[in-house]
Amino acid sequence: MSIITLTSDFGYKDHYVGALKGKILSQFLEAKIVDISHQIDYFNVFDAGYIIEAAYKSFPKNTVHIICVNSERTTGVEHIVMQWEDQYFITADNGILNTLTLKKKAQKIALINIHDRLTETSDMNVFATVACHLAKGGNISVIGKEIETLKAFHTTPLIISENLEEIKGNIIYIDYFGNCITNISKKIFDEVAKNRNFEIKFKNKTINRINTSYADFKITATKTLKDYEGEYLALFNEAGYLEIAIYNGNPETVGSATSLLGLKFRDIVSIKFK
Amino acid sequence: MSIITLTSDFGYKDHYVGALKGKILSQFLEAKIVDISHQIDYFNVFDAGYIIEAAYKSFPKNTVHIICVNSERTTGVEHIVMQWEDQYFITADNGILNTLTLKKKAQKIALINIHDRLTETSDMNVFATVACHLAKGGNISVIGKEIETLKAFHTTPLIISENLEEIKGNIIYIDYFGNCITNISKKIFDEVAKNRNFEIKFKNKTINRINTSYADFKITATKTLKDYEGEYLALFNEAGYLEIAIYNGNPETVGSATSLLGLKFRDIVSIKFK
Amino acid sequence: MSIITLTSDFGYKDHYVGALKGKILSQFLEAKIVDISHQIDYFNVFDAGYIIEAAYKSFPKNTVHIICVNSERTTGVEHIVMQWEDQYFITADNGILNTLTLKKKAQKIALINIHDRLTETSDMNVFATVACHLAKGGNISVIGKEIETLKAFHTTPLIISENLEEIKGNIIYIDYFGNCITNISKKIFDEVAKNRNFEIKFKNKTINRINTSYADFKITATKTLKDYEGEYLALFNEAGYLEIAIYNGNPETVGSATSLLGLKFRDIVSIKFK
Repeated sequence: MSIITLTSDFGYKDHYVGALKGKILSQFLEAKIVDISHQIDYFNVFDAGYIIEAAYKSFPKNTVHIICVNSERTTGVEHIVMQWEDQYFITADNGILNTLTLKKKAQKIALINIHDRLTETSDMNVFATVACHLAKGGNISVIGKEIETLKAFHTTPLIISENLEEIKGNIIYIDYFGNCITNISKKIFDEVAKNRNFEIKFKNKTINRINTSYADFKITATKTLKDYEGEYLALFNEAGYLEIAIYNGNPETVGSATSLLGLKFRDIVSIKFK
Repeated sequence: MSIITLTSDFGYKDHYVGALKGKILSQFLEAKIVDISHQIDYFNVFDAGYIIEAAYKSFPKNTVHIICVNSERTTGVEHIVMQWEDQYFITADNGILNTLTLKKKAQKIALINIHDRLTETSDMNVFATVACHLAKGGNISVIGKEIETLKAFHTTPLIISENLEEIKGNIIYIDYFGNCITNISKKIFDEVAKNRNFEIKFKNKTINRINTSYADFKITATKTLKDYEGEYLALFNEAGYLEIAIYNGNPETVGSATSLLGLKFRDIVSIKFK
Repeated sequence: MSIITLTSDFGYKDHYVGALKGKILSQFLEAKIVDISHQIDYFNVFDAGYIIEAAYKSFPKNTVHIICVNSERTTGVEHIVMQWEDQYFITADNGILNTLTLKKKAQKIALINIHDRLTETSDMNVFATVACHLAKGGNISVIGKEIETLKAFHTTPLIISENLEEIKGNIIYIDYFGNCITNISKKIFDEVAKNRNFEIKFKNKTINRINTSYADFKITATKTLKDYEGEYLALFNEAGYLEIAIYNGNPETVGSATSLLGLKFRDIVSIKFK
């Protein structure tokens, strides 16, 4: 029996999330359902892509992820299921899953073709049916027709200079704490850095070390951890991406990385090596 | 074993929802609990009524719904349980369930009379106890005294003109996407329309077709789906009610049906046939 | 098999809560997970302390509570697990659990010492591992080293005058309904009051009775319950603390105790006996 996770931009006010769970449990009462987020920015496939990439690795093999963000089936936009890293992802071919396939090739991608067999063909019904089928151990080929690749989508690329002296990335996500997450992964950083010294630059700020945790500051006889409150820092977050944060920042009181440093979605963060 | 769903105006900040689940699991560890919404407008029984009506049909037979919205037991307001469409609804006799009984007669209604048997008689304790009893397959008669009908509550009625040339309804709910939902059901529409042409009118706007989906627009050589973004449309939503929406509207950026069209709770939406 | 509850300041936008559940289910697929709140004020250990104290009593013996609020393990702040009232509490030794130990001595407190054995040592990984161990019936001694007491934290104390004529407390929590909760417990009140008359005073207001429920007002031939709407009242809430509320107040329309009475966090509420 597998876990089914839910990610959407449905919010929590209406009955949509509850109804989706009802549709799943109506078909598979033993399903173990976990909410990832229902506050993805409205229709924002990039937000959804980041969240699912950040979340999947906490789940076991064969977990089935339903992602309802801008996933209406329209002319030219098909419902798909993708097997990747031994987990399943169900959504529309709308750009959400491209971040995953840029990291690693999918094991299988299929266009969902069960719509004719259902009495209701809303995204929710289709996705619930496919998810229950897979979570029960069913085969992809029963519910879809295999295809080679996802549709291409334009994403802001990471730029690595030819002389390997600079990585230029962007802020791709700002979290609930106001932390600013870039598209610079630890993997890329390590490959390019080769243990050289570096300067992380954004706005008019520079950081030349990467914390191993938010509280990873040098404590001395005269400087306690408390003295570092409000300082900005860089660290690789659990998703493996470089994040700019404020130590003990607070969006509701003293401010956060986004509010204090003025960092916004798409802003440039670069790393210079020497 | 049945599902127990929860609907309330408790919000997510406090411990109330968690405590309610704890009370249920303390009595029935195997209970399958599903949240419908905990952001019903404070004390708003009409909101709660719409949400529960929209949600129930996604759940299987014998599902037990707890609804904690303005449900304190006071002089003249009893706690009740209603069996309807083979599901159970537990709340106060405060108007929430009247939308259901207007659609179809209840199978059974009972005044809950177990308060004397409990050490704590808060709504939560009473409802959790009744829900566990029913979810385990228990009988209504053990926990309540049967009554004939719910108390009457005034609701804004749908008006159908005598000559059947007009249906006059209202906005009864505005969802998280800013879509405006009316009290005009597909069933009533079909009965009155008898395939005649029609004009849907609200504010100074007119629509003369009903979309089968949000993206159900006519694609031509010169007009893509993208060109329809921002257009208003009407469709019957999953709950079966006529909804006014903006194609790819977004409450946080370009606007939604409620913000762009100025539609508010109780505003009139009428349909003229010819 | 025990319940695992989650309390955090993670919010609902990001994947953190979902990831934490994934980590738990990866180790213990049968775990019964219940969310208490993920909207604790950022880093606010007092808020977290109140919520967990208010919530725990709705849960059965052996429930395991994970509390991720300001719980990064730093110099001088250890991860701990506490057995108290036959339930388990996992967090950092940062003040959250002190409200519990002020009420009653812990059965056992241990410094978690499994960090060396884990590949990832984020709070989430450590807490998930410890919680699964305990929920499966494991022993505290396997995952921690017993200590005598929690670190001391300064909390605003309740003051009882020497002549027992006054209890002076504070607002410690304001809930989603705008109700203002004090640190005056029913237990303390009863011990000091000894059935004497009393006046509850805050700002320039006085109340001389304690409602048994929000709607506990005197109905007469000329005064219905509706006539009491908007009146302020005091009652002991489910957590056992004195709460100042407005009957049928509504933070979004007519106002609530915090907005109408101007009561804020830390404001004084005193009770005079005579």
